[in-house]
Amino acid sequence: MTPKVAYLGPAGTFTEEAARQHNSKAILQPLPSISGVAQAVSSRIATEGIVPIENSIEGSVNDTLDVLIRQEGLFIRRELVMPIEHYLLILPNAPAGNIHVIYSHPQALAQCRGFLESSFPEASLVASLSTSAAVDDMKKSQVAAAAIAPRRAAELHNVQILSESIQDNSSNVTRFVVLANSDHPPTGSDKTSLCFSFAADEPGLLHTTIGEFAHRGLNLAKVESRPSKQSLGDYIFLIDIHGHRDDPPVKEALDAVRLQSSSLRIFGSYPRWA
Amino acid sequence: MTPKVAYLGPAGTFTEEAARQHNSKAILQPLPSISGVAQAVSSRIATEGIVPIENSIEGSVNDTLDVLIRQEGLFIRRELVMPIEHYLLILPNAPAGNIHVIYSHPQALAQCRGFLESSFPEASLVASLSTSAAVDDMKKSQVAAAAIAPRRAAELHNVQILSESIQDNSSNVTRFVVLANSDHPPTGSDKTSLCFSFAADEPGLLHTTIGEFAHRGLNLAKVESRPSKQSLGDYIFLIDIHGHRDDPPVKEALDAVRLQSSSLRIFGSYPRWA
Repeated sequence: MTPKVAYLGPAGTFTEEAARQHNSKAILQPLPSISGVAQAVSSRIATEGIVPIENSIEGSVNDTLDVLIRQEGLFIRRELVMPIEHYLLILPNAPAGNIHVIYSHPQALAQCRGFLESSFPEASLVASLSTSAAVDDMKKSQVAAAAIAPRRAAELHNVQILSESIQDNSSNVTRFVVLANSDHPPTGSDKTSLCFSFAADEPGLLHTTIGEFAHRGLNLAKVESRPSKQSLGDYIFLIDIHGHRDDPPVKEALDAVRLQSSSLRIFGSYPRWA
Repeated sequence: MTPKVAYLGPAGTFTEEAARQHNSKAILQPLPSISGVAQAVSSRIATEGIVPIENSIEGSVNDTLDVLIRQEGLFIRRELVMPIEHYLLILPNAPAGNIHVIYSHPQALAQCRGFLESSFPEASLVASLSTSAAVDDMKKSQVAAAAIAPRRAAELHNVQILSESIQDNSSNVTRFVVLANSDHPPTGSDKTSLCFSFAADEPGLLHTTIGEFAHRGLNLAKVESRPSKQSLGDYIFLIDIHGHRDDPPVKEALDAVRLQSSSLRIFGSYPRWA
């Protein structure tokens, strides 16, 4: 049976590119939200789901972190890291000058701020729901407009590329995760992602918990906090460590953290991208 | 001379409410971006600036963290915590039923998701640049529309309140900070905010650094990471601790952290809100 891979759509976004790279033979199913992709995986409508989790400039994708924290039975099976290249698109045969409005997702507008300020200081920047929706918004615009989107959006929407690679920072990459109903067996070069929280607001609890990894020489690849959504100042900590949850030092550390925290959820172990 | 307080505008947003609460006699100056507010303070165009830094549901406001990390000579002088209440607004005398489009800032749409799904399952949700811009978008709409915005937007724009307090989570509060050219003298109940980073990706560095606070019984009110923007996996850590930077244990811990980290920036000490 052909596997079905859900992804944060629409088609023509960077997430679709990641999905195509992950499995070019799968049936790709765009869904309108990150929680929708997670639900498609949990309910077995899709075999796997692909969502962005972190960008090297903008930081974490909070919706993805919140879905991992809250949705039981959801695991990370793989990570993919992809360069983010933005293109300035206009209607076929439109004049390049005199652009009044530039549409894109707010993150893409932010990532091209330097280019926009120097090349189009007079244009109004307008938020669209996705880079692909920006192309639709440009098509419907009643004044001369452009859109910032990935190269693939130009092909899909049959529009013209005015400028290539307009992002300010050339080290702009996004990390995507493949969500599934189980994680990945050990490969020898793995990463484990988890979250935990504490019942009491005692000084030193986080220090002791992080120590369980540090004392075993396990590198923390990432530390992040998200609000518990119960009250301000009450957090859930998310960490990535090097190693697989079946490796003895990782297993020992996780057992110790389970005793110290009020909740521990392991999102899974999976091969490290680089 | 009447002090001038810049804030993340436009008027009719929660940040304006925070600015009015901070100093009701100041000249309030709305600016279109968080970095604009920070620059107005650094360049002494404004005495102080007010921006949101954290919401109890959505988490940190990344633009504010990035401005604090990067802009020299900018300090936090005060924090304010305010409840966030969303209102559903329509044009005066518009019929309440049959709403086709609902405009708001994406965070406000997200915070009212439950209400929108149960009361307006058929309506299209459209992103606006601010809750105040959402009211303008509603006014210009060619189909029956509503906007989600604070109560004050209804007064300023002279529109009608259809539903009150439509946010899903009743513990929805936002923390704002007052930016200035200096921080606050000790009051006995203070908080200190800082950021640091490491040159090497050595296991245990973060653990050792957090230990400087834990060993001195200094509570970590918050731990957060932001991308360094140099390369994926390279982070700047931001923490809030209880205490003033002039208190001896805090001073000692900060001196130790300065030696361990490759960069340390103290955003300031200021009175704790609660």
